[in-house]
Amino acid sequence: MVSLPGASPFEVAAIWTVLVIAFFGLAYAMFLRRQVMACDKGTEKMQDVWDGIRLGANAYLKRQLRTIVPLIFVFTVILFLSVYVVPPTAESKLRFVGYSDESLKLIIGFGRAVAFIMGAVFSLLVGQFGMRMAVQANVRVASASRRSFAEALKIAYRAGTVTGMLTDGLGLLGGTLIFIIFGVASPDTLLGFGFGGTLLALFMRVGGGIYTKAADVGADLVGKVEAGLPEDDERNAAVIADLVGDNVGDCAGMAADIFESYEVTIVSTLILGVVLFTQTHELSWIIFPLLVRGIGVLSSIVGTYLVKGNKNDKSNNALKAINKGFYSSAAISITAFGILSYFYLNDWRSFLSVVVGILLAIVLDEITKHFTDGHYHPVKDIAKNSKTGSATLILKGLSYGFEIAVWQTLVIAITIFASVMIYYGQPIVYVLYGVAMTGIGMLTLTGNNVAMDAFGPIADNANGIGELSHLDKDARKIMDSLDATGNTTKAITKGVAIGSAVIAAVALFGSFITDVSKVQIQMGFDKSAQLIETGIRISVPMVFIGLLIGGTIPFLFSSLTINAVTRAAAQIVEEVRRQFRIPGIIERTVKPDYQRAVDICTVSAQRELVPLALIAVLSPILIGALLGVEALGGFLAGVILSGQLLAVFMAGAGGAWDNAKKMIEDGLYGGKGSEAHHAAVVGDTVGDPLKDTAGPALNPMIKVINLVSLLAAPVIIAYQKPGQASVGMFITGAICFVIIVGAITFSKRGGFKKEVFET
Amino acid sequence: MVSLPGASPFEVAAIWTVLVIAFFGLAYAMFLRRQVMACDKGTEKMQDVWDGIRLGANAYLKRQLRTIVPLIFVFTVILFLSVYVVPPTAESKLRFVGYSDESLKLIIGFGRAVAFIMGAVFSLLVGQFGMRMAVQANVRVASASRRSFAEALKIAYRAGTVTGMLTDGLGLLGGTLIFIIFGVASPDTLLGFGFGGTLLALFMRVGGGIYTKAADVGADLVGKVEAGLPEDDERNAAVIADLVGDNVGDCAGMAADIFESYEVTIVSTLILGVVLFTQTHELSWIIFPLLVRGIGVLSSIVGTYLVKGNKNDKSNNALKAINKGFYSSAAISITAFGILSYFYLNDWRSFLSVVVGILLAIVLDEITKHFTDGHYHPVKDIAKNSKTGSATLILKGLSYGFEIAVWQTLVIAITIFASVMIYYGQPIVYVLYGVAMTGIGMLTLTGNNVAMDAFGPIADNANGIGELSHLDKDARKIMDSLDATGNTTKAITKGVAIGSAVIAAVALFGSFITDVSKVQIQMGFDKSAQLIETGIRISVPMVFIGLLIGGTIPFLFSSLTINAVTRAAAQIVEEVRRQFRIPGIIERTVKPDYQRAVDICTVSAQRELVPLALIAVLSPILIGALLGVEALGGFLAGVILSGQLLAVFMAGAGGAWDNAKKMIEDGLYGGKGSEAHHAAVVGDTVGDPLKDTAGPALNPMIKVINLVSLLAAPVIIAYQKPGQASVGMFITGAICFVIIVGAITFSKRGGFKKEVFET
Repeated sequence: MVSLPGASPFEVAAIWTVLVIAFFGLAYAMFLRRQVMACDKGTEKMQDVWDGIRLGANAYLKRQLRTIVPLIFVFTVILFLSVYVVPPTAESKLRFVGYSDESLKLIIGFGRAVAFIMGAVFSLLVGQFGMRMAVQANVRVASASRRSFAEALKIAYRAGTVTGMLTDGLGLLGGTLIFIIFGVASPDTLLGFGFGGTLLALFMRVGGGIYTKAADVGADLVGKVEAGLPEDDERNAAVIADLVGDNVGDCAGMAADIFESYEVTIVSTLILGVVLFTQTHELSWIIFPLLVRGIGVLSSIVGTYLVKGNKNDKSNNALKAINKGFYSSAAISITAFGILSYFYLNDWRSFLSVVVGILLAIVLDEITKHFTDGHYHPVKDIAKNSKTGSATLILKGLSYGFEIAVWQTLVIAITIFASVMIYYGQPIVYVLYGVAMTGIGMLTLTGNNVAMDAFGPIADNANGIGELSHLDKDARKIMDSLDATGNTTKAITKGVAIGSAVIAAVALFGSFITDVSKVQIQMGFDKSAQLIETGIRISVPMVFIGLLIGGTIPFLFSSLTINAVTRAAAQIVEEVRRQFRIPGIIERTVKPDYQRAVDICTVSAQRELVPLALIAVLSPILIGALLGVEALGGFLAGVILSGQLLAVFMAGAGGAWDNAKKMIEDGLYGGKGSEAHHAAVVGDTVGDPLKDTAGPALNPMIKVINLVSLLAAPVIIAYQKPGQASVGMFITGAICFVIIVGAITFSKRGGFKKEVFET
Repeated sequence: MVSLPGASPFEVAAIWTVLVIAFFGLAYAMFLRRQVMACDKGTEKMQDVWDGIRLGANAYLKRQLRTIVPLIFVFTVILFLSVYVVPPTAESKLRFVGYSDESLKLIIGFGRAVAFIMGAVFSLLVGQFGMRMAVQANVRVASASRRSFAEALKIAYRAGTVTGMLTDGLGLLGGTLIFIIFGVASPDTLLGFGFGGTLLALFMRVGGGIYTKAADVGADLVGKVEAGLPEDDERNAAVIADLVGDNVGDCAGMAADIFESYEVTIVSTLILGVVLFTQTHELSWIIFPLLVRGIGVLSSIVGTYLVKGNKNDKSNNALKAINKGFYSSAAISITAFGILSYFYLNDWRSFLSVVVGILLAIVLDEITKHFTDGHYHPVKDIAKNSKTGSATLILKGLSYGFEIAVWQTLVIAITIFASVMIYYGQPIVYVLYGVAMTGIGMLTLTGNNVAMDAFGPIADNANGIGELSHLDKDARKIMDSLDATGNTTKAITKGVAIGSAVIAAVALFGSFITDVSKVQIQMGFDKSAQLIETGIRISVPMVFIGLLIGGTIPFLFSSLTINAVTRAAAQIVEEVRRQFRIPGIIERTVKPDYQRAVDICTVSAQRELVPLALIAVLSPILIGALLGVEALGGFLAGVILSGQLLAVFMAGAGGAWDNAKKMIEDGLYGGKGSEAHHAAVVGDTVGDPLKDTAGPALNPMIKVINLVSLLAAPVIIAYQKPGQASVGMFITGAICFVIIVGAITFSKRGGFKKEVFET
């Protein structure tokens, strides 16, 4: 079945080994799941609280499926039909020798459609399965906390690792399978795979982000600010929705997001690798990145299994244990990469790119910590400004948010520069390949990263269950400590997620140029009209226009998502207020109707998601159809630049406000209930939708736009020869325009009816 | 003296007529000044309050001169010497036939240095003279308010018009003079003129922005929030600094800003016009824009003179009168442009570009109004969110702020598209010329615009003087109404300022490409290495790196300016608190020491200004020296894109919060003192430094960077041939890097000593 012209026996063995590793990673996930499920679920009161969370989570996941499945169906058909517009590439003919053009079309179309479904389903699986696992784990962690810290930590972390290994295993499986079957013809199919994963990640990120912050902000506003209730108070009708939201956002959303980055980096590396392979006839351009990924999975398995609390250590330091696992994985992988490069490649350049990626992850992490961790100057400075009220605290946060965007973006620029240096004197495609390998390096330890991230909502929910079922003080202390660690690990993963998103987007941007040129060459374009020759010139007015419009998209997206959160939060506030007025709720004699708040969040999240997805999918088609492919390249650059700056700004400012509030809650400037605390709560509430909804939504959005561009570009080229205006393209553009305007209107108003405002 | 090869008699007459019109504009300004100065200054009590403002304003202006004059001197020398690195252009030799190379260098170097001084001094004059005029006017307006609305309006508007006509007259004078003397050799000299004006505008914008908001935020925080005093209460030690600040920011800063846009559009139009002239030998590419400007000055004179209150109309509608003047000017200019195009050009394309510019100004204005005016849905929506506290109000503002950035940027994109369509099928330089002409059109009515803007602080200060000297109710009502109108006119001007800044920057970006290529051709570069042939390709990794770094600069700048404001505001808070503790201040038996607060603001503003200016001036040199001119082009595009988005976002959100607060103060949701009002005050305080410091500072910053790039590019090309690394450039880059890092450190800490934070 494998068709690899010129592959050495080692290379054939290597590719099959990688496939086995992928399955092994999945098996490890199932093994851990069984371990976690075998643990006990605690008292009846605990299970009672937990039932609320479980039901809420299930309702969300079910409803999500209902929204998403039809969309998957539509896109599958479109992707299948797209081969009838753009004939299969010359490489496809090389791979499937002897097939007629018609059967080739069928094969490629079918491959692309199935790959899309695979990408989508894998992404969905990671999110849905991971979230169900988290929900199963949280009550077990709460129960174990009554016994020991070490046990509670182990359950929480292993449950998180299930999601982590799913991400790793499925990501590797998909890419490798496609390569084994399609060989040099795989780029076409890989795009389908990438698009499926990215699109689903966008759905889950946006939906999850809106859900979690609508519940959180709503519950906070009405609970803390209005009625003076503590967090996780059982009389607050939104308290269960808030707990469910943590899973929806930080587990389902984040896991799908990282899965997608993991997948997209492999997709863009393989696409660029195939280009280099056709030029140099060395298969290592493709085999090495797959092996790197395989090694990453193995070292994640070892590293994550090492994470357990020390029964004799009473310090309850979960972060130390998690970090030990992480650094073990890192050490194993780098050593293995070195050995592989020495014996297999005889070329250190790819190795260097991978190491740059690992360094990049560490540096981004340090910068994130510096700006958002309470131990450093910026958060202290923000907290200090609470003394003159929330306005100065917010201004300081904005100032530091802008600053972190500067440093993170400069680090990305330096990373690309490193690639230029590593491949100095080589054509651009090498440099782009280097950037893609940096992305591979950055996400080597995805298993550990996702485990750390999914650990967050599990610990958080366990703590909530502990609070609501009134567990004893010792158990609560353990859960509190786990919860705090979870906040830190979540923040760390967020930095990696944004950084890898941009690196992945740059790699895709690179694939865009080579891919478009390939089609242009195939269609017999004049050399002076080929993108690889001309480049994407922002000095051409149309391309500059594309750049400007691209820059607006992240702003538009952020505006709409923030708006969606505040609107849904306002509904939650109304609902909780309504329930507070029911006699007996405040006196604890009547139990609030938690499910209504859960429903409000679920419905809002799903309703808001569709127009946003439409904007992401259709905007590149609009630009490509009306302004041409070079302008579409400018558009992509604009999206990447403004998306990166804005995403980091929002994540940074939000994280810093959050931790400034925590410092004050830990007793600084008068502690809880003080004026300073009130100021800090305002900052935190402003930051919440920025850091957990709008910011993270930009990661998959950037990549959806890039992938749609890659998929649409050949069609655009086919119908719009240089210098020719095409009626078809104009009509396509007009249709996209109308739908986008409709989507914006729908999103802004939360439906098509006009809201009425009092004056 | 004039050397215009092929100029028709009409064209020679036209150019002299434009020069006469420039002087006529200045004479009109002097005439209005005399009218204003002849008015009475009111009671002793009023003059007593006024003396505080006057002294504060003078102290600021004097100290500003002390900081700026040495910098002007340094840059003058650098600009003069630069001709010894880059030899004068071929065009210079055409203009000054028969001169030896050495004398030619002397002529061009001298011309560039003198032009720089002229640009700087003109900008300084507009700011300093305009602000002194505003200070002279405010007490006279207050005094006239005791008699009639019509008289008060007339004095305030005419005083504003003095600044407006100075802007018009000096901008036109400089450009025309340079063209008359240097003819086709003028681009070299024009750059010096543009740079002088822009650099000074940056100084005055940044200094003024920091001053005004440090005083405003400081006074608000301690006065309103802490002690519950009303605005402009005489016991608040920062109250005079606040009044001075309005002049410093809205008059000196804004006037210099618009002067600089006015100047830079003419500079870039003439540079591109000379390129087209050398290609087509038609002088109209240069004469027409100058005539358009001349017509604009004349119609501004007529329009502004028409603005006066109607003594029989008791509605006190100042905006109606001001708008009448504006539309009269607009009608006169468009008619005259049409006639000119018909009889002189026989070509409607330039006319169309100008009309697009006028339309652009109107559309931007409408968008600004839609998002920041209380009569429309967004501000109402923001105000409504005050009911759930300051956090939701701020979130709504952020959401609308992001959205306005989207629409404004799209409008700019459409404008460039219009240029592409108008010059369809022509080379890029025509399109760029069209964009520049759009800038000319947009700023046609600068006289009216600046008048409207300077009217704001005059009315605001008059109202403050009225409050502090306890004028009677009828007079206060008149002043209140003028003040409210001033807020609207200020907001309108702000929209025009940002929009014109971006259009001017795009035109400069265009000049960059043509200018760099000219030097490359002259230096015998291979065709494949010429920028006009290759374009600026973001698909080249180095250029993409430039784009990324360019995108960070506006974020860095905003971070530092916001930080500077909060730091200075905190000092003001400390000072006012200290004075509150002095016995007798609260009881009104002891007068506060207003001058100390004025001093704090003055010193802060000047200290913060230098590092920011260094960053703007050196960052393009750093990029150009280390990454080359094409990457510098990418850098410029990054600066323009992220600068535009961020500037509009900050201005929009800030303006919307401001007016949401005003709506509540006018009685909505409980009015002054209600919970909703507290929430809105927080939003307004957050928005203040965004809309009045950080946002506006980006306008001149974008252009300083563009002009420095234009000036530095030839040097970079001379020392760094393609494919060659140059030690000199590396050292230059390293020096810039060190200074920039130093400047950032200095700016972040407010000095080189480390701040100590409590924990």
